[in-house]
Amino acid sequence: MMQKMMVSLGERSYPITIAAGLFSESASYWPLTAHQSVMVVTNETIAPLYLQPVLAQLSALGINADSVVLPDGEQYKSLSVLDTVFTALLEKPHGRDTTLIALGGGVIGDMTGFAAASYQRGVRFIQMPTTLLSQVDSSVGGKTAVNHPLGKNMIGAFYQPTSVVIDLDCLATLPPRELSSGLAEVIKYGVILDYAFFEWLEENIDALRRLDQKALAYCIRRCCELKAEIVAADEREQGNRALLNLGHTFGHAIEAHMGYGNWLHGEAVAAGMVMAARTAEQLGTFSASLTERLITLLLRAGLPVNGPQQMSAEDYLPHMMRDKKVLSGELRLVLPTDLGKAEVRSGVGHDTVLAAITKC
Amino acid sequence: MMQKMMVSLGERSYPITIAAGLFSESASYWPLTAHQSVMVVTNETIAPLYLQPVLAQLSALGINADSVVLPDGEQYKSLSVLDTVFTALLEKPHGRDTTLIALGGGVIGDMTGFAAASYQRGVRFIQMPTTLLSQVDSSVGGKTAVNHPLGKNMIGAFYQPTSVVIDLDCLATLPPRELSSGLAEVIKYGVILDYAFFEWLEENIDALRRLDQKALAYCIRRCCELKAEIVAADEREQGNRALLNLGHTFGHAIEAHMGYGNWLHGEAVAAGMVMAARTAEQLGTFSASLTERLITLLLRAGLPVNGPQQMSAEDYLPHMMRDKKVLSGELRLVLPTDLGKAEVRSGVGHDTVLAAITKC
Repeated sequence: MMQKMMVSLGERSYPITIAAGLFSESASYWPLTAHQSVMVVTNETIAPLYLQPVLAQLSALGINADSVVLPDGEQYKSLSVLDTVFTALLEKPHGRDTTLIALGGGVIGDMTGFAAASYQRGVRFIQMPTTLLSQVDSSVGGKTAVNHPLGKNMIGAFYQPTSVVIDLDCLATLPPRELSSGLAEVIKYGVILDYAFFEWLEENIDALRRLDQKALAYCIRRCCELKAEIVAADEREQGNRALLNLGHTFGHAIEAHMGYGNWLHGEAVAAGMVMAARTAEQLGTFSASLTERLITLLLRAGLPVNGPQQMSAEDYLPHMMRDKKVLSGELRLVLPTDLGKAEVRSGVGHDTVLAAITKC
Repeated sequence: MMQKMMVSLGERSYPITIAAGLFSESASYWPLTAHQSVMVVTNETIAPLYLQPVLAQLSALGINADSVVLPDGEQYKSLSVLDTVFTALLEKPHGRDTTLIALGGGVIGDMTGFAAASYQRGVRFIQMPTTLLSQVDSSVGGKTAVNHPLGKNMIGAFYQPTSVVIDLDCLATLPPRELSSGLAEVIKYGVILDYAFFEWLEENIDALRRLDQKALAYCIRRCCELKAEIVAADEREQGNRALLNLGHTFGHAIEAHMGYGNWLHGEAVAAGMVMAARTAEQLGTFSASLTERLITLLLRAGLPVNGPQQMSAEDYLPHMMRDKKVLSGELRLVLPTDLGKAEVRSGVGHDTVLAAITKC
């Protein structure tokens, strides 16, 4: 029951393959061939679980594979840790014909993608996302980045992988808190794009938390499809792609203020989606009953629906003004208009935003 | 006698304007308009000379301009200095609609270009190259990068500017050694692409060193044209663009071994071109008399034609094997086949290369 789909981006199109056991299948390493060189980038949590099987498969294919193991956590998604990847590549040295494999969650995917975009001005890379969050979100769409102390994902590139390989077996070793964090992005797709999928989630959220393989495979595929459609129409986020940021402007403020890694990305996005819904309520473009339905689903997914108690409403704004959607100093927010629909809204008053945050 | 030309790269096409006094003309700041924001990136040598006139012009146009002044020199073309540009941008903060202006030589151009490519995954930038080297070389073609301790320009992106503005008045304040360094790249264009231009240089090299404006304007325009043609046909260096690297594989080894900044880039390229010519002689594809003609022109331009005395031939190879043209561990060299013609050659034996270096 392997699922396969394409992200359509002209000459930068690439396949996404979803199934259990993929890391141990030689076809997963397409388009690599014998005698090519590869650098597997992973972290100290994932390495003991999956690095040896991946290296063994690469070795069986006659590929010259090296690996670099980074510390685990959002706080290490920095320029200086990125530099250790470049050092590993140059020590061998790997040439412009090398391929990077991102074996890990969103942090590894984002960093490896930016390393691939920048090493010798661009080499190939393959995404092997190991968390639900990275499988449904960061592995699709070509956004790569590292954080800066003054803002999340502020340094990066739009750079597409050669292929994305999603092995469902990885989710068995994922901590429940990380699974919930991934479900926040899953729920986001329902809210901004697909009411039927939101309803499906209301029916299947328990099955997903139980790691029911059939439910997971459908869910991941549907999220990838929804994201791929948006990205195909707007690769560089000039328009509708911004909708994917629902909850993120608030969420990034939480992550930055609390110190990267303390709140998981999905947890911050979950609270941020409720704040966005409350903001839309203030503007009269979303109803309180829909917000309650969103809150119920988030809670069932094991997610927070309020910001951190330590943060006052005023703590959010300086971070939010560094959001990449800010244009000419004006805040732009993604706000839901219905379940399954959202808009990018300019000119929302700071007092409206503060009132909405205070409610959460 | 303003000269204007286009680099043709589809939707990434951009104009190059060449004349004296351009920094003080409002048209030079196209496509910026009032109320937009700009970050001028420059260095401590250039800032006292040209930063105030540029900021004054931007201010007169109603543009919100900030500036960041970096230390001067190739040894500061690093990820950590780049990070100070991101910090300056985020402290304000500048949004995704900002524009970076690179006001300086090749180091400032390469770093500012990479900062523009990476800041919030890409913002506009304008090149205002102040050295002959950057005017004829690094400002055209979209190669941006920083160095790594293990190799030059190893971290970067292909990223095109919005416009290039070349103010000939800058050359009056350029140290003669820097002017000669630029002439190395000028001579390179003649050797690889245009015999008539090589002959013109033999006639006009003294006028160029005297800063004759008419000669300079013609020379810079011709180099930009030659480079633009190559880049338009091969933006990402899959083919003929590699010819522009004549002398660079040897030259980068000199720069890296001697410590960045001790040998100027053009000085290393000049010695490297002679080494490439000697290598081609060893292979029987270039004649010693043509090498002598090249040496004569380089000497008249005030350039070295031998490598550093401290470097043995064996010191070169480890650096050369990290060259971005290396494929599957095999050295590929750009070698002249005639004055005005060159080729990319694979499979040149290390002993041949060592013999050629020993001759220089």
